[in-house]
Amino acid sequence: MSGERLDHLGIAVASIEESLGLYRALGLDLAGIETVPNQGVRVAMVPAGGARIELLEPLGPDSPVARHLERRGPGLHHVCLEVSDIRAIMERLRREGFQLLAEEPQPGADGSLVCFIHPKSAGGVLIELSQPAAGGAAEDDD
Amino acid sequence: MSGERLDHLGIAVASIEESLGLYRALGLDLAGIETVPNQGVRVAMVPAGGARIELLEPLGPDSPVARHLERRGPGLHHVCLEVSDIRAIMERLRREGFQLLAEEPQPGADGSLVCFIHPKSAGGVLIELSQPAAGGAAEDDD
Repeated sequence: MSGERLDHLGIAVASIEESLGLYRALGLDLAGIETVPNQGVRVAMVPAGGARIELLEPLGPDSPVARHLERRGPGLHHVCLEVSDIRAIMERLRREGFQLLAEEPQPGADGSLVCFIHPKSAGGVLIELSQPAAGGAAEDDD
Repeated sequence: MSGERLDHLGIAVASIEESLGLYRALGLDLAGIETVPNQGVRVAMVPAGGARIELLEPLGPDSPVARHLERRGPGLHHVCLEVSDIRAIMERLRREGFQLLAEEPQPGADGSLVCFIHPKSAGGVLIELSQPAAGGAAEDDD
């Protein structure tokens, strides 16, 4: 039951390069930028203690992040909780009536398994759950 | 320069009691509920690893959180970074053209000093900076 922790906070931005100045002024450093074509985003990872901030820039107009920028403007996009047993939590959520965006966990970065809870059943928050790959994740924690 | 970390994520909710079921289903526990009359909110603190989630329920229709609920609905509200020298960071932010909501740090919970960056100059994100009281904060970290 323990192990659940706030892993990262996703922020929708029009441009990673234009957004980084603020985080640098706050004393935070860029750890790296990844392109995730199947989600239509470039992701800048900014460690902030045990958690990190991810700046999400759309690769094109059809990505979910582009639609978020269009509808709501730039800003807070989603929160990701790291969980130890994603299938058990998905099962519990379904049993309690919460709506998930997929029936099964999906492959995420670095061998992780992820799923999203529908914001409509999570008080307007897009919540991502992520179970790290067995045996070795959290390399970039410090 | 180091020490900056994601301290908490604030989520606007209509009712703390109705919102807690989800976080409990996710394996997270309520650490406590505080009323902060001068901000017009009740705050439920939910530790999530080294950071925590704060559920913010308005005490009345005139509070900033009530206005957020009216305009944007429930959901992600602000992010708080803990910093080691809030005055130095405020000075740097001003010098670089970022807009703060107050000229001086304000007293926050437990002897902390806080300030907010205007979302207009922070990519649509309401960012709180918090410097813990000298000599002893972080009691509820584990």
